[in-house]
Amino acid sequence: MEKVREIVREGRRVAKEDPRRVVHSFKVGLVLALVSSFYYYQPLYDSFGVNAMWAVMTVVVVFEFSVGATLGKGLNRVAATLFAGGLGIGAHHLASMSGPTGEPILLAVFVFVQAALSTFVRFFPRVKARYDYSLLIFILTFALISVSGFREEQVVKLTHKRISTVIIGGLSCVIISIFVCPVWAGQDLHSLIASNFEKLSFFLLDFGDKYCEVVENDGAKEVDKRKKDFDNYKSVLNSKSNEESLANFAKWEPGHGQFRFRHPWKQYLAVGELIRQCAYRIHALNSYLNADNQVSVDIKKKLGEPLRRMSLESGKAMKEMSISLKKMTKPSSSDLHVQNAKSACKSLTNLLNSGILKEVEPLELVSLLTAISLLIDIINLTEKILESLHELATAAKFKNKIEHPLFSEKPKAKSFVSVRSIKCHDDHVVIIIEDDGNNDDTSKNDNGSKEVSIHEKHEDDDTHVDARCVSCGHTSVCVK
Amino acid sequence: MEKVREIVREGRRVAKEDPRRVVHSFKVGLVLALVSSFYYYQPLYDSFGVNAMWAVMTVVVVFEFSVGATLGKGLNRVAATLFAGGLGIGAHHLASMSGPTGEPILLAVFVFVQAALSTFVRFFPRVKARYDYSLLIFILTFALISVSGFREEQVVKLTHKRISTVIIGGLSCVIISIFVCPVWAGQDLHSLIASNFEKLSFFLLDFGDKYCEVVENDGAKEVDKRKKDFDNYKSVLNSKSNEESLANFAKWEPGHGQFRFRHPWKQYLAVGELIRQCAYRIHALNSYLNADNQVSVDIKKKLGEPLRRMSLESGKAMKEMSISLKKMTKPSSSDLHVQNAKSACKSLTNLLNSGILKEVEPLELVSLLTAISLLIDIINLTEKILESLHELATAAKFKNKIEHPLFSEKPKAKSFVSVRSIKCHDDHVVIIIEDDGNNDDTSKNDNGSKEVSIHEKHEDDDTHVDARCVSCGHTSVCVK
Repeated sequence: MEKVREIVREGRRVAKEDPRRVVHSFKVGLVLALVSSFYYYQPLYDSFGVNAMWAVMTVVVVFEFSVGATLGKGLNRVAATLFAGGLGIGAHHLASMSGPTGEPILLAVFVFVQAALSTFVRFFPRVKARYDYSLLIFILTFALISVSGFREEQVVKLTHKRISTVIIGGLSCVIISIFVCPVWAGQDLHSLIASNFEKLSFFLLDFGDKYCEVVENDGAKEVDKRKKDFDNYKSVLNSKSNEESLANFAKWEPGHGQFRFRHPWKQYLAVGELIRQCAYRIHALNSYLNADNQVSVDIKKKLGEPLRRMSLESGKAMKEMSISLKKMTKPSSSDLHVQNAKSACKSLTNLLNSGILKEVEPLELVSLLTAISLLIDIINLTEKILESLHELATAAKFKNKIEHPLFSEKPKAKSFVSVRSIKCHDDHVVIIIEDDGNNDDTSKNDNGSKEVSIHEKHEDDDTHVDARCVSCGHTSVCVK
Repeated sequence: MEKVREIVREGRRVAKEDPRRVVHSFKVGLVLALVSSFYYYQPLYDSFGVNAMWAVMTVVVVFEFSVGATLGKGLNRVAATLFAGGLGIGAHHLASMSGPTGEPILLAVFVFVQAALSTFVRFFPRVKARYDYSLLIFILTFALISVSGFREEQVVKLTHKRISTVIIGGLSCVIISIFVCPVWAGQDLHSLIASNFEKLSFFLLDFGDKYCEVVENDGAKEVDKRKKDFDNYKSVLNSKSNEESLANFAKWEPGHGQFRFRHPWKQYLAVGELIRQCAYRIHALNSYLNADNQVSVDIKKKLGEPLRRMSLESGKAMKEMSISLKKMTKPSSSDLHVQNAKSACKSLTNLLNSGILKEVEPLELVSLLTAISLLIDIINLTEKILESLHELATAAKFKNKIEHPLFSEKPKAKSFVSVRSIKCHDDHVVIIIEDDGNNDDTSKNDNGSKEVSIHEKHEDDDTHVDARCVSCGHTSVCVK
C-alpha cells in the first residue's frame, strides 16, 4: 500500500515537472487506438490484412516526445524501409533465378553479408550519431522481405503493403505530434540555454556579497540556505547531452513560432558549451565560499569593492543575455556590463599591484588569489559568451529593439553614449564611443530594469563604464 | 571515387580501433542467417508460420555489442512479451464477453489506457534508466496481441507462438554472444578505469618538470609536442556516460574471467567519478603550462624541488593504482607515494611561509598560487581515489600479493618498513610504522619497477617517505 502511494506521488511529481508529459501520453494512446482500427474495420482489414500490424509497430516505435524526434525517426524509418524493400526484392529476384536448391543458400548469403556490413557501418561515429536507427530498420526490413518472399511469392505486393502501412503509421504520428499540443525541441533548446544563462547570473549576482561579507557565526542554517540558493548552477554542468539531442531533433522541425526552418541551432550548442565552461569555473569558485582557509576580514574590506563589482557586473551581463535571448533581441546592454566588469578587473589588478598583499599570510593568499583568478576567468568567458551570442543573434536575425511605449518618455531626457567596443590589453586601452540617442540603447535600459524587477532589485539606473587602465596610465574614460 | 576511398579508410580506422567490432558484425550476420532458416525449412515453418519473423526481429533488435547489453535487452524483451501477452489475452477475453458491438470499443479503450499509462510511466527517471525498452515492448505486444486476437480467434495459440519465437531469437543471440568471442562489458569497464588512471599518471609524472623547466625559446614545435603528450587525459573528462552504460550492462553478465557474478561494479563508478574530478583539476592545471603570466625563473628554482616531487609522487601513485587494478591486487605501494606527495606539500607550505613570496609580482602570484592550489587539490583527490580503490579491492576480494620468483632474492637484503597510515593536520603528525619484511611490500616494489619499465624509466628504488612537519616542529620521521 505504501509502495502504491509512493508511485502515485512520483507520478504527480513527474507530471508537475512538465505537464506536457501527460498530454504526450494521451496522444500516444489516441494514435495507437486509431491505428488499431485497421484491424476492426473490414474494408481496411481487407486491403492490408496482417500487415496492418506494421502500422501499430511504427506508431509504438516512432512516436517520440518532441516533433523533431518523431519527424526524424519517422523519416528515417520510411526511407530505410523503402530502400531495404527495393534491395530485398532485388535479392529475392536474383536468388529465384538460381533454382530451388540454390535459392535458400543464396538468400542466406545475402542476409549474412547485408547484416554483417550494416552492423559494421553502425560503428562509424558519424553514422552512429545520425543514422543508427535507419540502419537497424534497414537490416530488419531486408531480412524480412528477402526471406519471407521465399514463401509468399508475391514479394512486390507484400513489400508494397508493408511500406504503405509503415507510411500510414508514421504519418499519423507526425500529424498528431504537430497539430495536437506540439512539443518543439527547438523551443525547448532555446529555453534551456536562456535558463542556463539565468542560473549562472543568480550565482554571480550574489557571489561578491557572499564572498566579501564578514562571516559571523550564525550557525549551520545560514550556510545551508546559502548552499541551496547557489546549487542552481549545478544542473548546467551536465546539460551537454541534453542540449545535443535537442539540437539534433530541432534540425528536423519545420518553422514554428519565432523560429524559421533553418534556424542556426548549431550556434546554440556553441553558446551552451561556453556557458558550461563558465559553470565549471563557478563550480570551482563555489568551493572557496566555504573553504577552510578563510581570507581575513581586513583584506576582504580592501579588495571588496572591485571584487563585488566584478561579480555583480558579470552577473548582470548574464542576466541581460538571458532576457535578450528569451525576447530574441540583440544583447546590446550586456556589452556595457562586461566592460564594467573588465574595468573592475583593472581596478583590482591595480590594488594588487599597490602592494596590498605584502602582509597577507601565504595560505590566505592561495585561497584569495585562486578565487580572483577564477573570477577573472569567468569575466573573460562572459565576454566570449557575449561574442558567441552576438553571432547567434546575427545568424538568427534577432530584432534590434523592442518598442516600450509605456516607458518611452523617460529616456528622452538624456543623450545616450554607447560604448561600441573596448579592448583592454596590458599596455593600451582602445575605446570607441558613439553618441547616438536612438531607441537602441533606450529600449535596452527599459527592458533591463523592467525584466529584472521581477527577480530582484537591480540598480540599472546607475549603469556606468569606468574603464581606467592605471597600470599604464594611458587612457581614462568615464561614461555615466 | 574519392568518397569511396574515404569510406574504406574510415572503415579501416574503425576496425583498427577495436577489432572486436569486425567479429561482432560477423556474429550478427551469422545469427540472422541462422534464424532466417526458420523460413527455409518446412518443418520449422510449419510449426511457426509467419510468426518466425518475430525471431528475426528479436535478433536484429536485441543483439548488442557486449554480452551484458545483449542479455539485458533479451531478458527485458522476453519478460515484457510474456507479461504483455498474458494481459493481452485477458483483455481479449474480457472484450469478447461484451458482444460484437462492444468488443471493438472495449478493445480500443484497453489499448488507449494501456498505451497512455505505459508511456507516462516511461517518464519516471528510475524506469527510464532501466526498463525503457521493456515498456516499449510491453506497449507493442499488448496492442498486437489484444487487437490481432480480434481477428484470429486463436489468441492463446498465437501468443504462444509469438513468445516462443521471441525466446528462440533471444536465446540464439545470447548463446552466440557468450560463446563466440564474447565481449564482456565488465572487462571493458575494468580496463577503462585502469587506463584512465594511466592517462592521469602520464600527465602528473611529467608536469613538475615541464612546469619548472626554464622556458627557452625553442619555438612552437616543442609546445606542440608537449601539448600532444598531455592531451591524453582529456578523454577522461567525458568518460562518465561510457562508464555508466558499461556498469549497467556488466550487472547482467554472469561471472567471467577474474570477475564473479556480483562483482562490485558500482564501486568502479565511484572510483571513476573521483578520477574524473581529478581530471578536471588537471585540465585547469594544464592551462597554466602555457599561460601568459609566466612565473619567473627565480621563483621556479626556489619552489621547484617540492613542486616536482608533489607532481611526480602523485603521478607514481596513479601509476601504481593503474597497475594494481590491472593485476587485481591490493594497491599497497600507492600509500607510500601519496604520503611522499603530502610531505612534499608540507615542504612547499613551509617554503611559502618562509617569506619567499614577498618579492613576487602580484600577477605572477595569481598564476603561481593557482597552480599550487590545484596541485594540492589533486594530491588530496589522489588520496581519496586511493581510499576508494582500497574499498573496491576489499569488496572485489583482490589478491594481497603476487609471487615473483625471479626477483625474490633481491629484497631480502633489506628489512622493510611500511608506513601504514600518516595523518598530517596543521598541528600534529601521527605516523604508525610497522616493521614487516614480508612479501607484501617486496612484491609491490618488484611489481612497480617491472611494470613501469615498459612505459618509462622509473626511479622506484629511491622510494622514500619524508614526512616532516616543520610548521609545528612536532614529529619528524624519515624512512628510506
